[in-house]
Amino acid sequence: MNIDTIAAISTPMGEGAIGIVRVSGEDAIAVADKIYKGKFPLTVLDSHTINYGHIYDPQSGETIEEVMVSVLRAPKTYTKENMIEINCHGGLVSVNRVLHLVLNQGTRLAEPGEFTKRAFLNGRIDLSQAEGVMDLIRAKTDRAMNVAMNQVEGKLSQRIQKLRQELLETVANVEVNIDYPEYDAEEMTVTILQEKGTFVQKEIERLLQTAHQGKILREGLSTVIVGRPNVGKSSLLNSLVHENKAIVTEIAGTTRDVIEEYVNVRGVPLRLLDTAGIRDTEDIVEKLGVERSRKVLNEAELVLLVLNQNEPLTDSDLELLKLTEENDSIIIVNKADLEDRIDIEYVRKLAGNRPVLATSLVRDEGVDELEEAIRDLFFEGDLDTGDMSYVSNSRHIALLHQAKQSVEEALGAVDADMPVDMIQIDITRAWELLGEVIGDSAQESLIDQLFAQFCLGK
Amino acid sequence: MNIDTIAAISTPMGEGAIGIVRVSGEDAIAVADKIYKGKFPLTVLDSHTINYGHIYDPQSGETIEEVMVSVLRAPKTYTKENMIEINCHGGLVSVNRVLHLVLNQGTRLAEPGEFTKRAFLNGRIDLSQAEGVMDLIRAKTDRAMNVAMNQVEGKLSQRIQKLRQELLETVANVEVNIDYPEYDAEEMTVTILQEKGTFVQKEIERLLQTAHQGKILREGLSTVIVGRPNVGKSSLLNSLVHENKAIVTEIAGTTRDVIEEYVNVRGVPLRLLDTAGIRDTEDIVEKLGVERSRKVLNEAELVLLVLNQNEPLTDSDLELLKLTEENDSIIIVNKADLEDRIDIEYVRKLAGNRPVLATSLVRDEGVDELEEAIRDLFFEGDLDTGDMSYVSNSRHIALLHQAKQSVEEALGAVDADMPVDMIQIDITRAWELLGEVIGDSAQESLIDQLFAQFCLGK
Repeated sequence: MNIDTIAAISTPMGEGAIGIVRVSGEDAIAVADKIYKGKFPLTVLDSHTINYGHIYDPQSGETIEEVMVSVLRAPKTYTKENMIEINCHGGLVSVNRVLHLVLNQGTRLAEPGEFTKRAFLNGRIDLSQAEGVMDLIRAKTDRAMNVAMNQVEGKLSQRIQKLRQELLETVANVEVNIDYPEYDAEEMTVTILQEKGTFVQKEIERLLQTAHQGKILREGLSTVIVGRPNVGKSSLLNSLVHENKAIVTEIAGTTRDVIEEYVNVRGVPLRLLDTAGIRDTEDIVEKLGVERSRKVLNEAELVLLVLNQNEPLTDSDLELLKLTEENDSIIIVNKADLEDRIDIEYVRKLAGNRPVLATSLVRDEGVDELEEAIRDLFFEGDLDTGDMSYVSNSRHIALLHQAKQSVEEALGAVDADMPVDMIQIDITRAWELLGEVIGDSAQESLIDQLFAQFCLGK
Repeated sequence: MNIDTIAAISTPMGEGAIGIVRVSGEDAIAVADKIYKGKFPLTVLDSHTINYGHIYDPQSGETIEEVMVSVLRAPKTYTKENMIEINCHGGLVSVNRVLHLVLNQGTRLAEPGEFTKRAFLNGRIDLSQAEGVMDLIRAKTDRAMNVAMNQVEGKLSQRIQKLRQELLETVANVEVNIDYPEYDAEEMTVTILQEKGTFVQKEIERLLQTAHQGKILREGLSTVIVGRPNVGKSSLLNSLVHENKAIVTEIAGTTRDVIEEYVNVRGVPLRLLDTAGIRDTEDIVEKLGVERSRKVLNEAELVLLVLNQNEPLTDSDLELLKLTEENDSIIIVNKADLEDRIDIEYVRKLAGNRPVLATSLVRDEGVDELEEAIRDLFFEGDLDTGDMSYVSNSRHIALLHQAKQSVEEALGAVDADMPVDMIQIDITRAWELLGEVIGDSAQESLIDQLFAQFCLGK
């Protein structure tokens, strides 16, 4: 299945000090050796050594690059196959030329994620660990990275494995009952089913409790800033961006124009929606009309509504307060440095349970409180990602929900005195669903699809 | 001088499979070991080995990343210092966190180019080799890369060294004459001065003959496509871009919007000026007016003027033919598939020495001939970058011109029977100027300025 030797550029595209061409497969070392000149041939070198030399074109004899080549022999490598990493000087032309020379020696260009896919197919990591690798690369905050790292390290896998083990033992017990009914273990089986089933159900619930925060950490919180013209929306955006490290990423596969901007607010990654639009458009409602605004707001997971303390509430303000009622939103009463002309009690009444904060963005006052409020809205207590395996992946969340349902059906069947072989079906189903999280019973098409989302060279 | 241990991210910014944090300096290995957990401490590991392990935060004990760490001990390293390269999973957050942990252990962020600067200051490479490294990273075509690679490998340095040696021998001979005038070597000294001086002068001339092509290879040829609306400018652009590998680069330090597009036409890197503008603007002259158009055209090193065979020449066509008279330009008579309504003899007359080519861009005819014409305009005969050390760097070119002038002044002084100690001043000056090419007598401020143009982490 994995007989091809594959190659790809593993560093981000662009001009940089170092660019890496990665090769994996049985012939990786022999292939690289055909275009390498150094003190010794790569084929005789020890594993896990770095070797100075030159890459040359075997057809023209021309020296192409001065390189450091890492020799990594199976099985202690990323893919568990023989691997070569060629560290070049890092220009676009240089890295591409070295890649093409490698491809000319009978290797094929790796598909996105194919190195990690091989690590999975060769049994070094399971599917949830592989997905963690992708999350690690895409992480927008330290905490999101911790969650991903835990997943890469197999902490989620271990918990899933443990639950599967419990279910397996239950099934084994049911089997005993079916095979030896005279053994009179029925009473015991029911007790075990209830005990283990309830334990697994509670554990899945605990995992699912982390899902909301986990998903936010992984994907960021889509955030919209709304308010009338000149209330301070741009100042708010600038405060958030300047006080925190903004991470701008291009969305893979799209044109250069589509850019996502992330701001890390106390560990909560805010994905600022259409920030260019916000900067330009002075009033979302005015520009889009009420219906379309409602639609944009519905897509937002966090709305920051800005009012002006220095002016009485207008119809627009009231409309925005109403439009955002259903959203997780924070009301920011800006320009606290100017004369107080707003009916703050009325604002609080309309705000309902939503936090209302006073800021003076020009004086940089109230931003700390706002950041605290954003954090509190989504995370209760201290975020502890040290031990915790957050469930952050939508695929995992869906599977856990289904597995929980199967377990609950089994428990219901026990209560209804259904025959144990019927109950066994539900338990087995739950076991299978949990297996899909770690790729134990995943289909090939799913696997292909998952790895296709990776970046090239991983 | 180099006592600090420095660190930087050495891979391009962006999401990628691998990101590298590079550390250099006496303490590099000890510093990295403070945040590394693996089978063995980095401090006891052999040089040029790659080691699996984890990076952790020594303050919180938290595991940050799963990494491969390269241990490279002085002096056989890029900087000739102890070096560590930490290969991370490659996300923006991940690589930055590892860098910050390294910086927290008492290292300092490297300045752009500082690793290469240390390689120079520690005597591993000379200045022209270091400049070659930067050119290698920035190279836009294979040939440009070959020229840079030759420079990195020291081929230019060797030629410069040889010339300096000749000059040094001449000076030594003059010294003998001054110190021992009774030795009656004056006649011989004059002969040697003439012989060696002429040799050096010719050699510098030969080097300077490569400068024009070298500069084009290094910097690309700024190219403008002009013509009336609907003559086929966009088609021409698309043909050039699609048939050749276009390399799009962002210009460092500017906003994301400033993009340079390079097209590699038979080894000639065309830098397409304001391509967005060309795609949008239908007529450069109409839009800019004659004066400003002339200015744009003056900045272009190659002008491709497109005419329409299917229409008689218009005033605009005539104006463009006249405006581009002083440019290296090629006249493209497009739409050769349609009826011939142009006065081609008149076009040829106005074109003067400029090539006039017929194309049918919709049928993809004539593009090969055009590419050939572009190549012939700038390169005579076969481009041989194998042995040739092209001089491509403006700094080198200026120094070579000055050195040549000093040598010529010396030769003139010999002819004019000037005293030999006067001649010696010119020869010494030429020797110094050539030394500046390889950094032998370069000032510190110049060195700082040169390396500041590098990318971070190199």
